Amino acid sequence: MTSLERTEAALAAIRQHKELNAFITVTEKTALEEACRADRELAKGQRRSAIHGLPISLKDLFYTRGVRTTAGSKILADFVPRRDSDAARRLRAAGAVILGKNNLHEWAYGVTSTNPHYGAVRNPHDVARIPGGSSGGSAVAVATGMGAASIGTDTGGSIRIPASLCGVVGLKPTYGACSLDGVIQLSQTMDHTGPIADSVATAAAVFEVMSGRKLKSFDGGVKGLRIGVPEKFFFERLQREVESNVRGAISHLADLGAKIVTLRIANASEANEAGRTILLVEALKTHAKYRKRRLDYGDAVRVFLERGEQITAQELRAAQKIRREFTRTFLRTWDRVDLLVTPTIPVTAPLIGQEKIGDEDTRACLTRFVRVFNITGVPALSIPCGRDDRGLPIGLQIAGPKRGESTVLRAGLAIERQ
Amino acid sequence: MTSLERTEAALAAIRQHKELNAFITVTEKTALEEACRADRELAKGQRRSAIHGLPISLKDLFYTRGVRTTAGSKILADFVPRRDSDAARRLRAAGAVILGKNNLHEWAYGVTSTNPHYGAVRNPHDVARIPGGSSGGSAVAVATGMGAASIGTDTGGSIRIPASLCGVVGLKPTYGACSLDGVIQLSQTMDHTGPIADSVATAAAVFEVMSGRKLKSFDGGVKGLRIGVPEKFFFERLQREVESNVRGAISHLADLGAKIVTLRIANASEANEAGRTILLVEALKTHAKYRKRRLDYGDAVRVFLERGEQITAQELRAAQKIRREFTRTFLRTWDRVDLLVTPTIPVTAPLIGQEKIGDEDTRACLTRFVRVFNITGVPALSIPCGRDDRGLPIGLQIAGPKRGESTVLRAGLAIERQ
Repeated sequence: MTSLERTEAALAAIRQHKELNAFITVTEKTALEEACRADRELAKGQRRSAIHGLPISLKDLFYTRGVRTTAGSKILADFVPRRDSDAARRLRAAGAVILGKNNLHEWAYGVTSTNPHYGAVRNPHDVARIPGGSSGGSAVAVATGMGAASIGTDTGGSIRIPASLCGVVGLKPTYGACSLDGVIQLSQTMDHTGPIADSVATAAAVFEVMSGRKLKSFDGGVKGLRIGVPEKFFFERLQREVESNVRGAISHLADLGAKIVTLRIANASEANEAGRTILLVEALKTHAKYRKRRLDYGDAVRVFLERGEQITAQELRAAQKIRREFTRTFLRTWDRVDLLVTPTIPVTAPLIGQEKIGDEDTRACLTRFVRVFNITGVPALSIPCGRDDRGLPIGLQIAGPKRGESTVLRAGLAIERQ
Repeated sequence: MTSLERTEAALAAIRQHKELNAFITVTEKTALEEACRADRELAKGQRRSAIHGLPISLKDLFYTRGVRTTAGSKILADFVPRRDSDAARRLRAAGAVILGKNNLHEWAYGVTSTNPHYGAVRNPHDVARIPGGSSGGSAVAVATGMGAASIGTDTGGSIRIPASLCGVVGLKPTYGACSLDGVIQLSQTMDHTGPIADSVATAAAVFEVMSGRKLKSFDGGVKGLRIGVPEKFFFERLQREVESNVRGAISHLADLGAKIVTLRIANASEANEAGRTILLVEALKTHAKYRKRRLDYGDAVRVFLERGEQITAQELRAAQKIRREFTRTFLRTWDRVDLLVTPTIPVTAPLIGQEKIGDEDTRACLTRFVRVFNITGVPALSIPCGRDDRGLPIGLQIAGPKRGESTVLRAGLAIERQ
């Protein structure tokens, strides 16, 4: 397929699934121009990168020169940056076709993507359900053929959660591996950028462009890899089908020659709590300048901001200490295993508006297994792992040591080929 | 005079002025032994340092091996460290005679030295008045011949305030120049240690021992030195005699060939406010472990701790930002001048129990001109500058650029010889 054919198919999907609210802005005209140019260059044998000509979108949290960037907020509804984010710049330089800007949880501050200003993003597997967030529009776009990938951000699971709930691949790289330049900040110490993609191969190709790093081959299979399974905490309180599918995938990895090691990640619950406290405070920074426009926020984000303003310096300090100590202990995991495997999320997609899952707050439930990897900064991938009885996607999470993306992708590929 | 004679004279002064409550612990026996040893070594021509044989005391905030270290608190009333602080170790190695441990404001957290557990330290110039603090016992000891110097600490003026109110010399060195090892912490970012001494020469000699640095000669006069006089803020709301004496000293420096430059230190009041906020939070760290013993604190310190617990993370962050920006601007002062001269304190010693000076809180008044040099970390000296009509000492403050102690002392010597 030519780039123009791919791009036209993506634009058709965007038009067809308008009710999913996956995009805030579609840059149809420039996308078609970029596709034509890509085809011309490719015809001349000028292949700029593995994603040359591929239609890709960006979460509407990334600055795009001349194209409005709303952060899913009312406050930035008419904000048109004069410069590109690093991610947009790199995509263009690599020859990707930029389709537009994806809808998201308001200000990327939440996990439902039920956006009060640009419409609730809907899960294509059941439109009454959330796609997860905050990069909800990105995952929906990829799941419905609106391009091969979308660039998302992940502060407490915001790439992996929607990837899991929508049945696509989501990679949160090592902290700092991909630039945050030109990304509207949520947290100074936990923000990451990375790809949501239709396959491990596409995710890897986009990651290489975003990071400027060449990955080691990840096609070598998992034979001999030591894979840690943290039974405590990460395999507790799971929806039945999530548990059986993830355990099935682990058996598959064992069949392929991986060595499965049961181990314990201590104090993950305390670390999550600390991470939430740190986020509540760090998120205030971006929003300080809009202090007088609190009524222009949706209720969910406003409540978080108000809660953040109540955190005392002493509470923050205690949380930072817990984070430091957890991270120090956690990083010793890599002395024993090469990777960790967990469910991405304990459940499949909740309903739009559903505030509790059992007796657990929806946000706490969806971030339960993912946030620790923002706290510690190690790479983590969510990869589709079958469906539940309702046909809703299940995700499996693979985490590895810092700069261990290629090992993480290696195991991801083995699951993908299952 | 031999070391033994000096030491016996100091011990006699301690006995004679017991009502001033300048000491919490007097190490009479070991002091006499140390003095004898110093005399033996000096007789053999073994002069370890300029302070060899000199009787010196330590604020009771410095760990002393085998000698109780109370921090002026009830909680540590029976605490006997098993090791020396760096300052105590260096003093011993330099051959100084350690007289004992000086009374102080409880936990060094305040400026009056009206200690609820070990008695109010009294100003020798009028026993109804405070000596200032928190190193109040140190300044009283030096002012009354209980040794030639005492080692103090200064987080918001705690060396310079009592030096000024008691008519002795107090040097707060550059941040980090003298070790904080074995000093009970008040603030992680504003604590300093330094000498209170009977003369500029003694202060310099003790500083050299404490810092391990050899000072450049400071006996060269002030000819050609550019001396900044920040009229705004630092010369406002002054007791009449404080203003006239300090201005007189500045004229004297001009007569000696210094170049007097009027300049402005912007936002000093906001910086002080920010410094107080930062201190309120940082002080919680040391006291977290005594959380259940709040009733064993005096009222003044307990109120500060409770106030600190109310500071939000957002307020702390705002204060830290003000501090950073103030410091950045402030440090450009040294492009224009070599030194700054101000009054140390706007007034002479207040009465014990006096909570207001005019309509200003006593603590705010006493720290008004000194705290900025803790915030910015530059060296500052308080040097006696005459008396008021009641015979109470007035202090003049000289500040310089980082590591500019010798220049500061040079101007101090010129004032001392006035």
